[in-house]
Amino acid sequence: MIRYQLLSRDGEARRGRLETPHGVLETPVFMPVGTAATVKTLSPDELRGLGAGIILGNTYHLYLRPGHERIARLGGLHRFMSWGGATLTDSGGFQVFSLGEGKGKGEGGAAPKGSLVKIVEEGVEFRSHLDGARHFLSPEKAIEVQEALGADVIMAFDECPPSLADRAYHERSLARTQRWLDRCRAAWSEAEARKADAGPGARTSCSLFGIAQGGLFPDLRRRAVEEAAALDLPGYALGGYAVGEEPAQMWEGVARDAPLLPPDKPRYLMGVGTPEDLLAGIAAGVDMFDCVLPTRCARNGLLFTRRGRLTIRNARWADDPRPPDPECGCYTCRTFSRAYLRHLFRAGELLGLRLNTLHNLHHYLELMAEARRAIEERRFESFRRERLLAWSAGPE
Amino acid sequence: MIRYQLLSRDGEARRGRLETPHGVLETPVFMPVGTAATVKTLSPDELRGLGAGIILGNTYHLYLRPGHERIARLGGLHRFMSWGGATLTDSGGFQVFSLGEGKGKGEGGAAPKGSLVKIVEEGVEFRSHLDGARHFLSPEKAIEVQEALGADVIMAFDECPPSLADRAYHERSLARTQRWLDRCRAAWSEAEARKADAGPGARTSCSLFGIAQGGLFPDLRRRAVEEAAALDLPGYALGGYAVGEEPAQMWEGVARDAPLLPPDKPRYLMGVGTPEDLLAGIAAGVDMFDCVLPTRCARNGLLFTRRGRLTIRNARWADDPRPPDPECGCYTCRTFSRAYLRHLFRAGELLGLRLNTLHNLHHYLELMAEARRAIEERRFESFRRERLLAWSAGPE
Repeated sequence: MIRYQLLSRDGEARRGRLETPHGVLETPVFMPVGTAATVKTLSPDELRGLGAGIILGNTYHLYLRPGHERIARLGGLHRFMSWGGATLTDSGGFQVFSLGEGKGKGEGGAAPKGSLVKIVEEGVEFRSHLDGARHFLSPEKAIEVQEALGADVIMAFDECPPSLADRAYHERSLARTQRWLDRCRAAWSEAEARKADAGPGARTSCSLFGIAQGGLFPDLRRRAVEEAAALDLPGYALGGYAVGEEPAQMWEGVARDAPLLPPDKPRYLMGVGTPEDLLAGIAAGVDMFDCVLPTRCARNGLLFTRRGRLTIRNARWADDPRPPDPECGCYTCRTFSRAYLRHLFRAGELLGLRLNTLHNLHHYLELMAEARRAIEERRFESFRRERLLAWSAGPE
Repeated sequence: MIRYQLLSRDGEARRGRLETPHGVLETPVFMPVGTAATVKTLSPDELRGLGAGIILGNTYHLYLRPGHERIARLGGLHRFMSWGGATLTDSGGFQVFSLGEGKGKGEGGAAPKGSLVKIVEEGVEFRSHLDGARHFLSPEKAIEVQEALGADVIMAFDECPPSLADRAYHERSLARTQRWLDRCRAAWSEAEARKADAGPGARTSCSLFGIAQGGLFPDLRRRAVEEAAALDLPGYALGGYAVGEEPAQMWEGVARDAPLLPPDKPRYLMGVGTPEDLLAGIAAGVDMFDCVLPTRCARNGLLFTRRGRLTIRNARWADDPRPPDPECGCYTCRTFSRAYLRHLFRAGELLGLRLNTLHNLHHYLELMAEARRAIEERRFESFRRERLLAWSAGPE
């Protein structure tokens, strides 16, 4: 199991420590997304070198390919991908529900459109985006799959409706999600008890996080948090943000909802976000973040720098011998020029995608490290203001 | 300039040392191909870690994108790609002539079909495979471009006809290639003299290698070698092998031609080949090899092992916890299972292409290191027999 310790606060911002079966995480922490048991383009050694302590795997993708039972036979997710740090898996729900919405496939994101999704009280029937085969995911199945993968943190199976869906839909959906949460908890307790009976040498114990939904409706969010908190789970997440609303709406919602979460448990804001979003989340008291943005943007040639976003393919950099971010200490910035990275990107060279990914994750992880120091030194708000100002300047 | 020292022999096989402005190479040496100023998927640090001392760049590709003048402005090829080891560039001729043959585009290989190529005494007119623009490459231009790139070894501009073209074609082509060699030498001497005049701080001096063509006609090959040798160039290559003939024909030709090359100069067999080909070349007295095979096969999921070729996508490996090659010490084999590598390959994950590339290059470079030891210990032929036997077994 995991154990959270709150070390200090600065306003609502929390500086903490999360012990997991695979290492201690300093929080607030950013978790790179490793959808298909790989953080795209990077090796486990590189991730460790970047200071990543925990990465995320996507249950939907791993369930379909290579299959959770296969991964279990091969020793679980950690051993399968040769990752010694901690892991977190989502429940698969987000991807499955997205099958109906056609958000486009890929890393952590939704599977492609046109697949059938049918929600009933029991769970969700869907078709694989790989071969069209029918599958059924339920709270019990989502827990079974995640227990087989064996991540340090596993997530409850919930529905994540679009923020802007109407109140009636959110109420119906939330009530079902809360019933599913009870079923997830029961299935998880049983699975953990079976592992405990199996004695030493058994798999990692998995810590279940509950997820509070409720869209942009403050009373629904409050109800969701209270009901989930009553289950006394190892941790809690806010789901259903960054799914269609404006950033300002999200920031307002997170600022309102995060402080409602149990203070003695880690707080996770799912699927968020930009560097600006991370600082807003930290200010609200969030401890854990994940997002495909740094890795996906890297593969699209967008680099995050201390002076904002830099589009590497821009002709402006064709002869520029400077690194992408002169203030950055990552391997990419220590070693290569904008001109070279632009060349690699235009030539479709895979090394370019790697070097961009390395840089963007370094930027995110370094931002979190600096935010942690700022909280410790009780200057988080001035740190946040400085960074927002610098980002708005744009690269020279 | 470079300097070659013959250390010892075992039959025709040579153990030598090649000093370059960017490090000392132990020969026989294999040179990974870095077509567009990157050995596809790998970082310079990884190449160095693999023990690579010299890599190859393709003049045709770099001339078109990002352009040799741009690379020169950015400090030359070494600095552009942040590679501290030695480099060799081809003349661009092979790719340009291949434009007319449609061998398919890609790493080190030919540009795509359908482009116009017109050969005249002055040089070759061709259209870019990128945008269809007209370009003209001549011996003088090929030297100018390579001098701008600034590799440690540069190659003469030649025509590389298909091995199986008729004798009349080979005679005409060879005569022209020999006239072009004279022009290359003159252009190179002038360029090097200009650099010497520019004094210290000027670019790396580039060592020109002559190329002997002549197809499968022993007398043409002999004439080509003799005429080239008379120019007293820093090194010599056999071109026009592995371009359509059977392996046995190539091995016979190389065994006959390589010993004709000047013994006090490095001998380079261009674009060759399989592990079996390398051992045949070494047995014939070749010192330097390059080939896209290990890197391109890696990206197609074909791994070279001590027990021959392993197709990673094969369902047979789906649950196999063993590394691709249990006798291999590379990062891939030390860290990952066949099951995981198969998963990465099937999922189209870039990490899989990297790990496969790392392994295959390790296999090639390790093979060369073992061949060098075998020559030193005067047991090269038995080493060769053992390896051929082991490769023929196939992976367990």
